[in-house]
Amino acid sequence: MHLSLPSRLENLVRAEFEDTCRRRFFFGLAFDPYGGAAGLYDMGPPLCAMKANLLAHWRQHFVLEENMCEVDTTCLTPAEVFKASGHVLRFNDVMVRDTVTGECIRADKLLEEYCEAQLKDTVALPDARRQELQTLRNTAGGMTPAEIQAAVAHHQITSPKGHALSEPFPFNLMFATNIGPEGDRVGYMRPELAQGIILNFKRLLDSGNAQRMPFAGACIGTAFRNEIAPRAALLRVREFTLAEIEHFVNPNDKHHDKFAAVKDTEFWAWSRELQAANAEPVCITVGNAVAQQIIDNETLGYFIARTALFLTAVGVRFVRFRQHQRNEMAHYAQDCWDAELLTSYGWVECVGIADRSAYDLTQHSAASKKDLFAREEFTEPRTERQLQRKLQKGAIGKAFGRNAGEVMAYLTAAPEAACVELGERLASSGSAEITTASGFTATLRPGMVQFDYKEVKVTGRNYIPSVIEPSFGVGRILYALLEQSYWVRRDESAKNEKRAVFSLRPVIAPQKVAVLPLLVKPELTAAVEGIRSELVLRGISTRTDDSGASIGKKYARVDELGIPFCVTCDFEADGCVTLRERDSARQVRIPLAKVADVVAALSRPSQPRDWGSVEAEFPAQAAATA
Amino acid sequence: MHLSLPSRLENLVRAEFEDTCRRRFFFGLAFDPYGGAAGLYDMGPPLCAMKANLLAHWRQHFVLEENMCEVDTTCLTPAEVFKASGHVLRFNDVMVRDTVTGECIRADKLLEEYCEAQLKDTVALPDARRQELQTLRNTAGGMTPAEIQAAVAHHQITSPKGHALSEPFPFNLMFATNIGPEGDRVGYMRPELAQGIILNFKRLLDSGNAQRMPFAGACIGTAFRNEIAPRAALLRVREFTLAEIEHFVNPNDKHHDKFAAVKDTEFWAWSRELQAANAEPVCITVGNAVAQQIIDNETLGYFIARTALFLTAVGVRFVRFRQHQRNEMAHYAQDCWDAELLTSYGWVECVGIADRSAYDLTQHSAASKKDLFAREEFTEPRTERQLQRKLQKGAIGKAFGRNAGEVMAYLTAAPEAACVELGERLASSGSAEITTASGFTATLRPGMVQFDYKEVKVTGRNYIPSVIEPSFGVGRILYALLEQSYWVRRDESAKNEKRAVFSLRPVIAPQKVAVLPLLVKPELTAAVEGIRSELVLRGISTRTDDSGASIGKKYARVDELGIPFCVTCDFEADGCVTLRERDSARQVRIPLAKVADVVAALSRPSQPRDWGSVEAEFPAQAAATA
Repeated sequence: MHLSLPSRLENLVRAEFEDTCRRRFFFGLAFDPYGGAAGLYDMGPPLCAMKANLLAHWRQHFVLEENMCEVDTTCLTPAEVFKASGHVLRFNDVMVRDTVTGECIRADKLLEEYCEAQLKDTVALPDARRQELQTLRNTAGGMTPAEIQAAVAHHQITSPKGHALSEPFPFNLMFATNIGPEGDRVGYMRPELAQGIILNFKRLLDSGNAQRMPFAGACIGTAFRNEIAPRAALLRVREFTLAEIEHFVNPNDKHHDKFAAVKDTEFWAWSRELQAANAEPVCITVGNAVAQQIIDNETLGYFIARTALFLTAVGVRFVRFRQHQRNEMAHYAQDCWDAELLTSYGWVECVGIADRSAYDLTQHSAASKKDLFAREEFTEPRTERQLQRKLQKGAIGKAFGRNAGEVMAYLTAAPEAACVELGERLASSGSAEITTASGFTATLRPGMVQFDYKEVKVTGRNYIPSVIEPSFGVGRILYALLEQSYWVRRDESAKNEKRAVFSLRPVIAPQKVAVLPLLVKPELTAAVEGIRSELVLRGISTRTDDSGASIGKKYARVDELGIPFCVTCDFEADGCVTLRERDSARQVRIPLAKVADVVAALSRPSQPRDWGSVEAEFPAQAAATA
Repeated sequence: MHLSLPSRLENLVRAEFEDTCRRRFFFGLAFDPYGGAAGLYDMGPPLCAMKANLLAHWRQHFVLEENMCEVDTTCLTPAEVFKASGHVLRFNDVMVRDTVTGECIRADKLLEEYCEAQLKDTVALPDARRQELQTLRNTAGGMTPAEIQAAVAHHQITSPKGHALSEPFPFNLMFATNIGPEGDRVGYMRPELAQGIILNFKRLLDSGNAQRMPFAGACIGTAFRNEIAPRAALLRVREFTLAEIEHFVNPNDKHHDKFAAVKDTEFWAWSRELQAANAEPVCITVGNAVAQQIIDNETLGYFIARTALFLTAVGVRFVRFRQHQRNEMAHYAQDCWDAELLTSYGWVECVGIADRSAYDLTQHSAASKKDLFAREEFTEPRTERQLQRKLQKGAIGKAFGRNAGEVMAYLTAAPEAACVELGERLASSGSAEITTASGFTATLRPGMVQFDYKEVKVTGRNYIPSVIEPSFGVGRILYALLEQSYWVRRDESAKNEKRAVFSLRPVIAPQKVAVLPLLVKPELTAAVEGIRSELVLRGISTRTDDSGASIGKKYARVDELGIPFCVTCDFEADGCVTLRERDSARQVRIPLAKVADVVAALSRPSQPRDWGSVEAEFPAQAAATA
């Protein structure tokens, strides 16, 4: 673990980085011949391979090692699902419109930019004004349309073109479409994977887990958000891949069986308290963070640790975990931590780890009228005081005729406290009024209903589980990884030319090894093909380059793709080839018969062989010239 | 290769099969608590794992072994792309509406069902009538709205509820949505991956392939079709995963460098000629099919062979390749073959292998006004006769004033034959009329333009490549694999109970091995956990079952998931465990220290160890009782 967190990426000149990404087609705007489409990106072969590697390792690290239930769910989602989950009503950004051009602008960004400009421009800004602007900048993100309206009026803010602004209005970020030929069934492209996993809770509990709790569902898939202002390359886009886990747990018991195995994992924690005190994140173990109640519970702590381990394993260098402010969390969330990765755009949320409580399952249970609960059997039967409701059907029927059913439904479903209060009123005043759901008012008399407490022996209880959700933004992690891995080597043998290198770990690199002929000759091409077949057989991805370029130039091309190893075939009669390591550019001579196994060991995902041990075993080779 | 193709799956009772799939949650309707959404399915853990395995093998077999350029492209697509590709205009099914209920019905299906019912009901159907109905049934799929209208009127066909039908109208199968906050930019969810790959042609050629042709782009992703009548489980759905290859090739040279390596691959070919003759498919080598021009070209043949090898490797038992009829192909296609897999719904298209010619690139080049060509350098410079167009700007400008630009554009772009004809008219009659794109009519005179042929030395040429496209329907392949692998074992030791088995190959099975304790005891649980860790380290996916069920019951549960091997830990002091093979239910005793390596060898994707050799090496164990 590094000793302190940097505030910027030292090795990165963004324009050079972007040029490398474009030239080697790591990614680019989609629909390029048409000038590209804002917020939609295609991944080219190197990043596409890195994505497959990242997801394969995610499956290994989470799904396989933790025995999770992976599901593959649909993007298209009927409206009723997102009505129940609250997305149709609340998944909004606030917009304003330029009243002259009609352009739509995200209101919070407009306010933030106004404040930034004001704070920058004026040297002699009065203290009170400075403070007012800082407060506005920091709170703009959470404002209601009315608050934004007030701020726009107070500061006389105009559109970027200097025109008057419309009233602020909410803009739903989901893409809508019509499902089916009738055109009357609205659907949305999901903006997250959570609902698809959560709606499979019952099937997974029944079929996959023999009713045993806790367990986790997992899903990898595409999500869509109609961002008002896509920007910052892969960081704010309209279509992206998520990898999500929904861990279903008893709300009364959030301990985790495997917590002991991760409790010594260190991470950079930026708690609410540290943020409020304007202090830096601190490095702490997950065990201590849970013990000190910085993290709400063991299961949340377990996933923070596992996330930290995953990010480190794939090569992330700079990550901090930021706790959400209480007013920043969704109203149902218990606690929430974002894994933020350092990029040239600042610290960017790449993984969100939230305790969503029982909110979603409760909402779907109510909307679909299906029981979505788990069962907890007590180790010993317990005696519980339970409210008994004795309804006299005859008396109720006689008094309320065709409304009797409603009255009985009310009395059966009324909350416990209301029943107690009603019983007291009946006893004290001899009658009590109630109003049913449909608005019918009934005057109850003693003898119609009686409420008593009784001791009952119970062997278990039904409960709606809480959900703890680690959600990984795959494109953001990949982008941050690229930036954090990027540096420039000065090649002394080639006029001190600048040569880009991505220091990607083998587990994530687009290919593990390049197999190169020193010169383009048939006998060398055959040797290359032979080594390549051996590697493909071991499942090792390779790249070749049989162009006429010099070997130095070929190494530069391979470094630029982040490929960790190179095998070069030459005419030497010693039966050996050259094996080169990317970051050190050091080389060894290695027998042809051994090279495939050594490369396989160096690049295996779990416990890869260390380059030092290869240098210790095989003789060094002087570095190649360009 | 089997000796003849069956016409139905002998081992399958569909209701039993569906019950197994539901009970073990291979797949199920999405949004289950809400009653499910038609045409949208979720995959549960077993099928989700099989899908990941299938795609990993697809990447190995095609992308890695063939050095393809994989890209990851977006589902959301701006309208102009699908306007250029023809999808906005032509990606339709014809519908009719019940004029009373308003229900929408797919017209071709309605006609087919009408014919089927008529053909079934009447024993004494006159020959002419029978023939008429058969023809209608066989041609309904390709009919225009007008032809359908005529057929409905002629046969007096009504809706299934007996009501009059509306006029037939085309219904576009793409899901539309609005991109961006202005709500004025229409987008579609892609119904295929092709356009996303094809629009990256130039970037891939430049960045990934150093301008070398031919090469292939590949993509795995989600596609969407608003099917009017989703049905047949995973076979006709509204959202599905495709794995597509677009192989870019010189239209004048469709040979394939590696064709010799696959020419002896046998496949069941059902050519146009065999279909027309009402004959069965024949088993033939790809080499012979290309030599006899049954398959149009080597590259198409190469991909048919590679597809056959892929399907066999993942465990498909019954596949035939059906060539499209000439009137069935898209108008731009040169040749097209479907790999059809046998299911309980009949032979189902699971892979389409089409020569799309240069259609898409030509369309996009015209619509985007970007050059989307490759360059072919001739081995020797060639002398070509080229048309020279000499325009006299002064004379044209004087004659046509502000329309002069248009006239010159016309003369520059006019096809060669038109120019020759125009030159002849000018020479013979001293004037010639032309009409420009905007409708302006110009009378040309000699001296304004002159056309001559000249011998020119050329070193190469630009061309728009042809595209050969193998497109894999992942959900369909998985569904067919499940059906073809399914059978029922009578368990003699358990009252002859019926027990479902999926005979899936290790490469595709959801987990490779189950590790079971013979009894639920702490020392056995520890042994299970130890073996499991060893297997996870080797990347082998496992399953455990520490319920109190009998070992026979546990084996049945494992067979039902298609897991090929079981390791059972017992109390024996011989330091051995039991290893069981699923299909034969045969067992060996194997030392604890060796079991992980043996299982890894049995289940490796490439050249797995044969079970027979394990039986030869280790002593047999009598079969367990239930």
